[in-house]
Amino acid sequence: MPELRKDPILGRWVIIAPERLTRPQALQAALEEPSAAFDPFLEGNEDATAPEIFAYREPGAAANGPGWRVRVVPNKFPALRVEENLQMRGEGIYDRISGVGAHEVVIECPHFETSMANLSVDAIREVLWVYRHRLVDLKRDTRLVQALIFKNKGAAAGASLAHSHSQLIVTPIVPIAIREELAGAQEFHRYRGRNIFSDMIQQELADESRVVIDSPGYLVHCPYASRFPFETWIIPKQHASHFEEARRQEIDELGTVLRQTLRKLDVALDDPAYNYVLHTAPFDVPDLPYYTWHIEIYPRITGTAGFEWGSGFHINSVAPEVAAEALRNARPERDA
Amino acid sequence: MPELRKDPILGRWVIIAPERLTRPQALQAALEEPSAAFDPFLEGNEDATAPEIFAYREPGAAANGPGWRVRVVPNKFPALRVEENLQMRGEGIYDRISGVGAHEVVIECPHFETSMANLSVDAIREVLWVYRHRLVDLKRDTRLVQALIFKNKGAAAGASLAHSHSQLIVTPIVPIAIREELAGAQEFHRYRGRNIFSDMIQQELADESRVVIDSPGYLVHCPYASRFPFETWIIPKQHASHFEEARRQEIDELGTVLRQTLRKLDVALDDPAYNYVLHTAPFDVPDLPYYTWHIEIYPRITGTAGFEWGSGFHINSVAPEVAAEALRNARPERDA
Repeated sequence: MPELRKDPILGRWVIIAPERLTRPQALQAALEEPSAAFDPFLEGNEDATAPEIFAYREPGAAANGPGWRVRVVPNKFPALRVEENLQMRGEGIYDRISGVGAHEVVIECPHFETSMANLSVDAIREVLWVYRHRLVDLKRDTRLVQALIFKNKGAAAGASLAHSHSQLIVTPIVPIAIREELAGAQEFHRYRGRNIFSDMIQQELADESRVVIDSPGYLVHCPYASRFPFETWIIPKQHASHFEEARRQEIDELGTVLRQTLRKLDVALDDPAYNYVLHTAPFDVPDLPYYTWHIEIYPRITGTAGFEWGSGFHINSVAPEVAAEALRNARPERDA
Repeated sequence: MPELRKDPILGRWVIIAPERLTRPQALQAALEEPSAAFDPFLEGNEDATAPEIFAYREPGAAANGPGWRVRVVPNKFPALRVEENLQMRGEGIYDRISGVGAHEVVIECPHFETSMANLSVDAIREVLWVYRHRLVDLKRDTRLVQALIFKNKGAAAGASLAHSHSQLIVTPIVPIAIREELAGAQEFHRYRGRNIFSDMIQQELADESRVVIDSPGYLVHCPYASRFPFETWIIPKQHASHFEEARRQEIDELGTVLRQTLRKLDVALDDPAYNYVLHTAPFDVPDLPYYTWHIEIYPRITGTAGFEWGSGFHINSVAPEVAAEALRNARPERDA
């Protein structure tokens, strides 16, 4: 039974999900390169996944059969389950919560394709709509407070299947990275009365050296204190703390900008492994003037980090100014 | 020129060290499996490294030649340099510090050996003495406030050379993981008047399920909220916040316990890749009643983490109770 455990020193929550892999030996197998030998996410293989939670389908196409464009299914090895009861329990200095939550997979296309950047802009927009739709739906479960939408692309980024997909984890607690980001943004706002993401956008646009794409609604840039080579963030220029409240025009433009960004990364780094994570405010707070949802992309082109895990200290061997220039200059064919 | 940059939202410092690798293409090469083809750390190859900073040598053996047992050299691609001047500078919402600091490599044995666990207990004790010695020396530079001693073993843990070695990074700022650990421990102490590490030791010894080794001076256990499968901590039972003040008996016993722990990991996980990090209090504070130095070991047996980087949220598929039982039962031959 999965559970959430809290580190008593740092206040960091960890999901202990021993059902995912029952024996240490099985972990080794998980290291192997994703294979296209059998693709459970392919159209026609719908019975290889658990019954779908949601899909965009052609008119008349029945659930769990062909005829879909984007499909959401439960993770086969869920780290959390909505069926759990929310139980909180102390154990001396430790705290635990039963593993209640959602863990879903968004299958981004019915055909075999490893790079989201190769999907059409309409397909990417539909993926973003699915993200929004699932958040709106899960937000109704008042036990759940935080959504994390993320993508692991390539074995080096932790993907176990090559078919382009992303994942959604919704938890009953706010994980430490979001909590700290909220706290830092709130402190800036308290001190200076401004949204730090707005200040960042203004400074980056004035400076230009770290800008990758400047679209009407979004800034794409390599952040000043990038932890990873070619780390890239997409931030909406108009303040909004909750992604699930984005409007049609915002989602549509995000589709265009996300596709351009991923295509630039594919060209500049030769189809790299990467993770992206959507940071959005917790469900249970109103619109926060000090916070802006955004997407952080971490290419995984260098070897696995080592001491970073124990220090929080990253060594990045590519200055963000160098990365941004390479990405600005990367020119995917216009309509490929 | 390396520099430290501060994330304006999280307050996390990053080392931007573009001199380490000048082109993105070179990063790919860094991913390759460490090779023993040429071993710059071998006795007799002393001229393949920069001149040594320190060594334990046989009587009469000259510096930078054979006859050593443990040898400390500057990192070939230093992330920080002691020769830099300490300059702090603001840039709008951003802060930077020149890359002043130390980045050294501790070569743990003169012969080719990949696993520290295969060194004699005397050799491991000498490595620990070298750690202590370097900290005492670097502490005299008042610009430097935090030492991080760590080991990357195996390519999956970020090692670029297979010959058993560890590294030392000393920085002019306190990195976020240490800062948060100090803050969490201080809060616990303020609230309950006790050292949280002492409470943890007491609770773990009473519970027993996560204990790996219980020696007179140290508790080795898999922490309650382990982020990684088989994560293992070594904590001194006697409170002490600064590793560099450890006495002979403490270092000697740590050598025994560290060797036993690493041998158990080697047996249970078949010579795994791992990182370890020594957490110790900053140089510029006196003994802290609320903090205890300790070693955290992270085996790297699962694929590279993905969304953990963006959420601070780890999913661990091996419960620490299962890991600890496997490590308790792992029995390396006594005198191998």
